[in-house]
Amino acid sequence: MPGKADATRQRLLDAAMAEFAEYGIAGARVDRIAAVAGTNKAQIYHYFGSKDQLFDAVFTGIVEMVVRETPLDVHDLPGYAAALARGYDAHPQVARLATWQRLERAEDPPIPRAVESTRTKIEAIAKAQADGVLPTEFPAGVLLGLLLSLAAAWTSVSPHYTAAVGAMTPDERAGYVEAAVRRLLSGGPGDTEGRA
Amino acid sequence: MPGKADATRQRLLDAAMAEFAEYGIAGARVDRIAAVAGTNKAQIYHYFGSKDQLFDAVFTGIVEMVVRETPLDVHDLPGYAAALARGYDAHPQVARLATWQRLERAEDPPIPRAVESTRTKIEAIAKAQADGVLPTEFPAGVLLGLLLSLAAAWTSVSPHYTAAVGAMTPDERAGYVEAAVRRLLSGGPGDTEGRA
Repeated sequence: MPGKADATRQRLLDAAMAEFAEYGIAGARVDRIAAVAGTNKAQIYHYFGSKDQLFDAVFTGIVEMVVRETPLDVHDLPGYAAALARGYDAHPQVARLATWQRLERAEDPPIPRAVESTRTKIEAIAKAQADGVLPTEFPAGVLLGLLLSLAAAWTSVSPHYTAAVGAMTPDERAGYVEAAVRRLLSGGPGDTEGRA
Repeated sequence: MPGKADATRQRLLDAAMAEFAEYGIAGARVDRIAAVAGTNKAQIYHYFGSKDQLFDAVFTGIVEMVVRETPLDVHDLPGYAAALARGYDAHPQVARLATWQRLERAEDPPIPRAVESTRTKIEAIAKAQADGVLPTEFPAGVLLGLLLSLAAAWTSVSPHYTAAVGAMTPDERAGYVEAAVRRLLSGGPGDTEGRA
């Protein structure tokens, strides 16, 4: 059973995720985070050291969550991409936090847990390519990048795109991502359908 | 020949583009913009009315520029996507401004010029689908969204992705986008190669 200190730390992380997702890193206010968490600013510095380190803790937590909820499956990259798209739909703050991080922290050293997670995925894709499970048209890292971009397609469309196209359901969004990644992989050595 | 007033207005727009791209809308400082433009804050209010309206003017200018520099070609969507990718490389502030707009202005009414530009593209793609020039696997608006997402793939990758994959040249980035969109369109009625 978590102690009182753990509970305070977790409430701060939850409040910080909502605040950073809404306002970004520069725009986030530690006093608002403390108030929502039912504690005071001093506790933020006690548990995390600084606003920047609090952001790193939130972001690393999100990387862990995405890795845990949607493990890479090199035998079903379209399904993996669709699962990522469903995760973005279920947790809209994830894409927002990743985007703020990219806009505001591009010059900072990348977060080690996130680099490691990306490297592991690239190695798995490269191995599947070497084993003939996946087509080799794109280098493994490029294939991952294109897949991630398609999985996040509906999180990164502009307000004017949404106004022009209209709303889609989560099933439609995930289905289009799955079909697009299937197309991306078609025609290569791993494409049994296309080779029939 | 532009007059002095036009020159001041243009210097303000140029300075505002750099400031908004770097700091976003909330983070942008009108006094910094005025200083870089060699004028004063009152001129910003005189020409544009407010910081928000200055952002709208910058953003509408960018939409016009992208439409002018990279017109949609339904007969060569892979080439169109590659040209967009090259544009993002040449003008890194474009993707940043669009991203800030999405993060900070999602609730605002969309910018009319941008909605109109998107609608025109969707209609052109739908017509090409009806004419058998493009495959119909994806509805026109969805196909455009997937294409735009791939074209912007390398602008939206995370710092940890870049750290894991390493740098790519602009030619590589555009080439991968072109190949990916070619795959996206393969197998449909407009795919003469795949039907051979």
